[in-house]
Amino acid sequence: MKILLIEGPMLDKIGEREPQIYGEKGTREKLLGAFYEKAKSLGIEAEAVSDYVEGNLAKIIVNAECDGIVINPGAYTHTSVLLRDALLCSKIPFVEAHISNIFAREDFRRKSYLSDAALGVVTGFGSATYAAALEGLAAFLKK
Amino acid sequence: MKILLIEGPMLDKIGEREPQIYGEKGTREKLLGAFYEKAKSLGIEAEAVSDYVEGNLAKIIVNAECDGIVINPGAYTHTSVLLRDALLCSKIPFVEAHISNIFAREDFRRKSYLSDAALGVVTGFGSATYAAALEGLAAFLKK
Amino acid sequence: MKILLIEGPMLDKIGEREPQIYGEKGTREKLLGAFYEKAKSLGIEAEAVSDYVEGNLAKIIVNAECDGIVINPGAYTHTSVLLRDALLCSKIPFVEAHISNIFAREDFRRKSYLSDAALGVVTGFGSATYAAALEGLAAFLKK
Amino acid sequence: MKILLIEGPMLDKIGEREPQIYGEKGTREKLLGAFYEKAKSLGIEAEAVSDYVEGNLAKIIVNAECDGIVINPGAYTHTSVLLRDALLCSKIPFVEAHISNIFAREDFRRKSYLSDAALGVVTGFGSATYAAALEGLAAFLKK
Amino acid sequence: MKILLIEGPMLDKIGEREPQIYGEKGTREKLLGAFYEKAKSLGIEAEAVSDYVEGNLAKIIVNAECDGIVINPGAYTHTSVLLRDALLCSKIPFVEAHISNIFAREDFRRKSYLSDAALGVVTGFGSATYAAALEGLAAFLKK
Amino acid sequence: MKILLIEGPMLDKIGEREPQIYGEKGTREKLLGAFYEKAKSLGIEAEAVSDYVEGNLAKIIVNAECDGIVINPGAYTHTSVLLRDALLCSKIPFVEAHISNIFAREDFRRKSYLSDAALGVVTGFGSATYAAALEGLAAFLKK
Amino acid sequence: MKILLIEGPMLDKIGEREPQIYGEKGTREKLLGAFYEKAKSLGIEAEAVSDYVEGNLAKIIVNAECDGIVINPGAYTHTSVLLRDALLCSKIPFVEAHISNIFAREDFRRKSYLSDAALGVVTGFGSATYAAALEGLAAFLKK
Amino acid sequence: MKILLIEGPMLDKIGEREPQIYGEKGTREKLLGAFYEKAKSLGIEAEAVSDYVEGNLAKIIVNAECDGIVINPGAYTHTSVLLRDALLCSKIPFVEAHISNIFAREDFRRKSYLSDAALGVVTGFGSATYAAALEGLAAFLKK
Amino acid sequence: MKILLIEGPMLDKIGEREPQIYGEKGTREKLLGAFYEKAKSLGIEAEAVSDYVEGNLAKIIVNAECDGIVINPGAYTHTSVLLRDALLCSKIPFVEAHISNIFAREDFRRKSYLSDAALGVVTGFGSATYAAALEGLAAFLKK
Amino acid sequence: MKILLIEGPMLDKIGEREPQIYGEKGTREKLLGAFYEKAKSLGIEAEAVSDYVEGNLAKIIVNAECDGIVINPGAYTHTSVLLRDALLCSKIPFVEAHISNIFAREDFRRKSYLSDAALGVVTGFGSATYAAALEGLAAFLKK
Amino acid sequence: MKILLIEGPMLDKIGEREPQIYGEKGTREKLLGAFYEKAKSLGIEAEAVSDYVEGNLAKIIVNAECDGIVINPGAYTHTSVLLRDALLCSKIPFVEAHISNIFAREDFRRKSYLSDAALGVVTGFGSATYAAALEGLAAFLKK
Amino acid sequence: MKILLIEGPMLDKIGEREPQIYGEKGTREKLLGAFYEKAKSLGIEAEAVSDYVEGNLAKIIVNAECDGIVINPGAYTHTSVLLRDALLCSKIPFVEAHISNIFAREDFRRKSYLSDAALGVVTGFGSATYAAALEGLAAFLKK
Repeated sequence: MKILLIEGPMLDKIGEREPQIYGEKGTREKLLGAFYEKAKSLGIEAEAVSDYVEGNLAKIIVNAECDGIVINPGAYTHTSVLLRDALLCSKIPFVEAHISNIFAREDFRRKSYLSDAALGVVTGFGSATYAAALEGLAAFLKK
Repeated sequence: MKILLIEGPMLDKIGEREPQIYGEKGTREKLLGAFYEKAKSLGIEAEAVSDYVEGNLAKIIVNAECDGIVINPGAYTHTSVLLRDALLCSKIPFVEAHISNIFAREDFRRKSYLSDAALGVVTGFGSATYAAALEGLAAFLKK
Repeated sequence: MKILLIEGPMLDKIGEREPQIYGEKGTREKLLGAFYEKAKSLGIEAEAVSDYVEGNLAKIIVNAECDGIVINPGAYTHTSVLLRDALLCSKIPFVEAHISNIFAREDFRRKSYLSDAALGVVTGFGSATYAAALEGLAAFLKK
Repeated sequence: MKILLIEGPMLDKIGEREPQIYGEKGTREKLLGAFYEKAKSLGIEAEAVSDYVEGNLAKIIVNAECDGIVINPGAYTHTSVLLRDALLCSKIPFVEAHISNIFAREDFRRKSYLSDAALGVVTGFGSATYAAALEGLAAFLKK
Repeated sequence: MKILLIEGPMLDKIGEREPQIYGEKGTREKLLGAFYEKAKSLGIEAEAVSDYVEGNLAKIIVNAECDGIVINPGAYTHTSVLLRDALLCSKIPFVEAHISNIFAREDFRRKSYLSDAALGVVTGFGSATYAAALEGLAAFLKK
Repeated sequence: MKILLIEGPMLDKIGEREPQIYGEKGTREKLLGAFYEKAKSLGIEAEAVSDYVEGNLAKIIVNAECDGIVINPGAYTHTSVLLRDALLCSKIPFVEAHISNIFAREDFRRKSYLSDAALGVVTGFGSATYAAALEGLAAFLKK
Repeated sequence: MKILLIEGPMLDKIGEREPQIYGEKGTREKLLGAFYEKAKSLGIEAEAVSDYVEGNLAKIIVNAECDGIVINPGAYTHTSVLLRDALLCSKIPFVEAHISNIFAREDFRRKSYLSDAALGVVTGFGSATYAAALEGLAAFLKK
Repeated sequence: MKILLIEGPMLDKIGEREPQIYGEKGTREKLLGAFYEKAKSLGIEAEAVSDYVEGNLAKIIVNAECDGIVINPGAYTHTSVLLRDALLCSKIPFVEAHISNIFAREDFRRKSYLSDAALGVVTGFGSATYAAALEGLAAFLKK
Repeated sequence: MKILLIEGPMLDKIGEREPQIYGEKGTREKLLGAFYEKAKSLGIEAEAVSDYVEGNLAKIIVNAECDGIVINPGAYTHTSVLLRDALLCSKIPFVEAHISNIFAREDFRRKSYLSDAALGVVTGFGSATYAAALEGLAAFLKK
Repeated sequence: MKILLIEGPMLDKIGEREPQIYGEKGTREKLLGAFYEKAKSLGIEAEAVSDYVEGNLAKIIVNAECDGIVINPGAYTHTSVLLRDALLCSKIPFVEAHISNIFAREDFRRKSYLSDAALGVVTGFGSATYAAALEGLAAFLKK
Repeated sequence: MKILLIEGPMLDKIGEREPQIYGEKGTREKLLGAFYEKAKSLGIEAEAVSDYVEGNLAKIIVNAECDGIVINPGAYTHTSVLLRDALLCSKIPFVEAHISNIFAREDFRRKSYLSDAALGVVTGFGSATYAAALEGLAAFLKK
Repeated sequence: MKILLIEGPMLDKIGEREPQIYGEKGTREKLLGAFYEKAKSLGIEAEAVSDYVEGNLAKIIVNAECDGIVINPGAYTHTSVLLRDALLCSKIPFVEAHISNIFAREDFRRKSYLSDAALGVVTGFGSATYAAALEGLAAFLKK
């Protein structure tokens, strides 16, 4: 079983960027560490890709070859019909993941173009986010 | 460390109730099993309570003695200012959890009175939901 | 064939309560009388239960054993996702009934969480309401 | 006592038209049969008229000579201020009746220009609809 | 003359609960003290009841025997059609009272199902709230 | 301690103006009488000013020298950003007071530009309004 | 100069229909009398037509041969894009006239599909309405 | 019989101000000329006052001594609760008049705080506006 | 294969009516010419009917005998639930066609009651509109 | 005459992607085939370009050298102010084309940032879409 | 060339008033100093007037004799149709200026009645605001 | 001190693009000329970058090394959560600048995702825009 982690823009800045929201220095290392560790313990092959450009992310998705996707679309969550369409086009089951709690921030972050097409959503778990998302996705794929 | 799992009304019907949404027979057993197992593997004391009456749930919350709460408020998610107030009153950190993906259902299920006060939200992971919620909550509490 | 009539809060006050809206003294007697009489004439076993507490009403519904439900949820009509969920959970066909014409009152009474899940709705027929609801429900069940 | 049943456009197509919504072949015969039978059993003189044109329906209403009206305005329910005004102009008490459950369909069917001026509303009872409406109207007129 | 003070859920936690909003330790004692003192100075018999359950509060209201009600419905203010209906059903004049300034908090607290049926509203006066509400109610009842 | 009572336009017409809303002849005398009496009994120096012109009221506020303000902005309540800004500019704590229950009238009266910046709000107490407002304000200032 | 008065449905019922809104018996005679008299005093040729059917009214408008139109579209005011389009299609300047004050009635009467395309609007002048409308229209045409 | 014409700000600029909307040079003279002439021909005593300041206009209204008011509140039409309240306070019947067609301009001009309290409204008749308003008002007062 | 072109009101005025929107003189001839020519070139039998009255259009639709419909409902596009219902009732596949670009005009023209039930929509192609609509419809029917 | 066909992201997936919406395998070949064939039969030079990235599409548009554009912006239709601005900047007349009927899908697809600036819109014609769009565009350009 | 700076209410309090928003002590001196200095360096005659009363500000505007206006309407920005109308009436080009960033404050400050009629808007530049506004206005006037 | 000017898509077309909105030929040269000249006169090092692709702009921002940013995001202003997030992530103070007055254009241009996070906003000053923005930014940075 193979899972792709797809990250939108600026997630490489976690640990530097607004630490009161996204976590202190070291968060990114923990975030990815916990993700790969969880994959390993579940016997899942995991790979991560990221891009700043909406169109490129769509291309990655429609050409992906994997059994499931964990996606953190960053700022595109709230504005991109394209990513939604790409995920539906790919027919690959996916989980939406956000490091911060998007419901505790600006109103416009409450709207996601992806949530109703996702298997599930995880939000607000900081460095544990991707691991928790993977656990949920795996439980679904193993059914 | 002690965690309380609080369930709102009709979650005892999981496995019978609208199986295309909430999961087939056996889902409830798996749901609670995975929760307790996760607690054990994390070295956390876990307890579960449930009630059908909004006011009783509020009383449980304001009198709870624990380090964190996983709450699945069921139908009250979308209508209860009281549960929000009870959780804020208790000052205990909590995670909101939903077995089905509430974003893929009726419009009125998109609104939660709890989400912006929660640490995080997990939705749509079926029988893996409470375990994933606990993992996220534990990661937070151990910080 | 067995039918359950479920009444929400304060319907025991019909005849006393705002008579210009809910009917004069004696309305409650006529209302129930006409209901049981209609049941008898249709050869249907009829039973009535009521409760003031939303959670208790949900419990009654999910544990009901009958072929159809006539429900007058009173004030909960406009606020309760729980009663909707309980009725969907029970899988028992139901008719929604209101003694006053809810469309001729405050704006917030125009919204019902139950109507779109009901077989049909009867509103405004005073003491003839439950009998009319039962007639409609029976016509459906006999099909 | 004399009652007029007024039907808007396309109700003559019941039995052919979208049978999953309006009922199978034979529904129209049952619908009218039950209505006249109920009238007879209540000792009420009943007559039915219908028209496809909004303005003609208004003319029928303002010139009607009867004690009560059962009206199924069809598609005009949701768009016609004129029928509302005609009914208010006539001062004849009326009941609004819909064969399908208009609350379980498109959003724009939730709005009726007549409901708040009606004695009551019956919706969703299929071939039992007009009979139930008549029963409710009669109960009112006999008061 | 007899006045009933009816409190909704969690008002027994005043002094512990979010002190920056509801007041420091001792606030509850002052709140009730000032209320009873005011009652005494006005020659009014005063009694206080409270409950966490919406349906129970409604039952208390419709069976109350008094000349006026001061009600602090807590979180139910913003969600309960039932309490509104119970107060209208009881025909007892009432004043709505809130310890914190509900207009200076979340948007959903700006909506009250009771305000337009109340004689008056007092909000934000901390431990002086019930006394001020009683003074206003008494002035009305003595007219 | 000194308190300023600031009245917006047409409050000098209380007793003549729409008596079913604002009170019968003599209401104004009682209103001010009760206010001054309360001030005296609380040992507070009280003064009252009024103006019909929004800009003049703002000037009065920003130049006021007192410890607290009771303000009844009349019709400006619902339209004046200026009075809000003047009160915030003055940094003087204030209570908003309305003689009629603004929640039981036109929809546009439900919106106040002042409420969320006020200590508290009193509405609907007729001739007892200013006295109740002063009692609440005094309780706050004495803390 | 020739003016056409076009009336929508039920205006022939003025004097019978809801007299508290549209005026007592004799209002229609006065209404038309004042209109023709005004026309005469202004040296204008005046003609009146009416119809209950929206499509027929449109046909009348697009085929009209006159210098100006006074139109009272009755209930169609609030629902008819067609009459707006017909008037624009005809390129004949027109005045919209309503016997009752449409702003003092139901909310849906506040919206007119014609007003922004009209020269002017007269509303609420009872039997003086058409005469006033004609006076305004004539002043414009004589420019 | 005495009528007061009350004008809000900038109506003295008619003839200079945006002539494509309010009319060419000479419009003001014609406007007032036609008004006084109409008054004379109806045997009505007429007087005109104007002010730029909202509060002053309110004072004029509440102290007015006349049988009816024609009011053109100018820009205050869309923003002033005060003028509405002043007119209601005065109990003098009034007609609202606008020289331009306010329905054919910016959206915010569609809302008037006065219309539903007025006897009637005249809009868009240019220099004939006040005369038409007076004719309508007089017809009402003579009843 | 037989196709029916159904036109709503005033389309016979194309070429005269607002030429900047609907096209210059001769447009109607070209419009129908291109339609019949396209039909011929595709080997399709084509017929055209039109009516000004909404109810009559509905009757035409529910009694139509053809394989596909091109409909230009004119002003009824934006207001008629009836035409939508008639088309659904008929079960005949249809294409919605507008000569002008309805998205570049008043806001209320952006809403169509037919679009979501249509196979497709063509808007803004002037005299080429019906031919293009027919081409699209034919491609679908030939599948 | 030269026409540019500009396609947004994922249109290269037509035939694979959600075939129930976008058409079965072979649809893309037919779509482009019909487009080029139509171009040839109209004597038009046609070229097609596509890109996944919004900014690149804008660059293509502002640098385009052609007489008309057929654009299918895909998911960007509903979110891109940039493509609108690019088309307005280019001053080249364009037609908007969608293969599926965007009005029969999610609500957010009903909004297009391009439609009101387009000559016309074609939606829902599957593999005939681009050919129909070209026919309409050509008719316009030849005028 | 002559420029008028018009200030609404309470701008004389800059430096005292909410310093975290409007700037510390000395801000007003700097604000006006920079404005006059800029005027001098551009060879522009500059004058400043201010008033607390909306109607007076309108009078100042309609009687102004200058080539351009810099206006900071203070709280009236969000509520005054009158100032908009006065500026349009005067036909003098103007720039709207705000010392604080009105977009970073309460929602109601996001709406300005002036912005769409202005040449441009400057907001948030503290003591540099009027100078920047003047620079922009001058660039326009010199064209 | 170093300032970065960041421009979104199509600003290289100023002078060609919709000149009635963005200015005639030569505007771009003047715009940048005035910007660099202002920078020089303020002793500020200035650099300009631009890109058509949203994701690339975000990358430029999060990697920028400077003391302040003047950003004209073009069409992305109204749609990009990403640019907002990038600016917040960078922690560099910025000013938002628009050459045309965005408040005088389409409704969707009134919304900016950046304004409330900016120091200030300048809009509508044509070729003087960037210079004015720089002046405002510099005043802030020098504090």
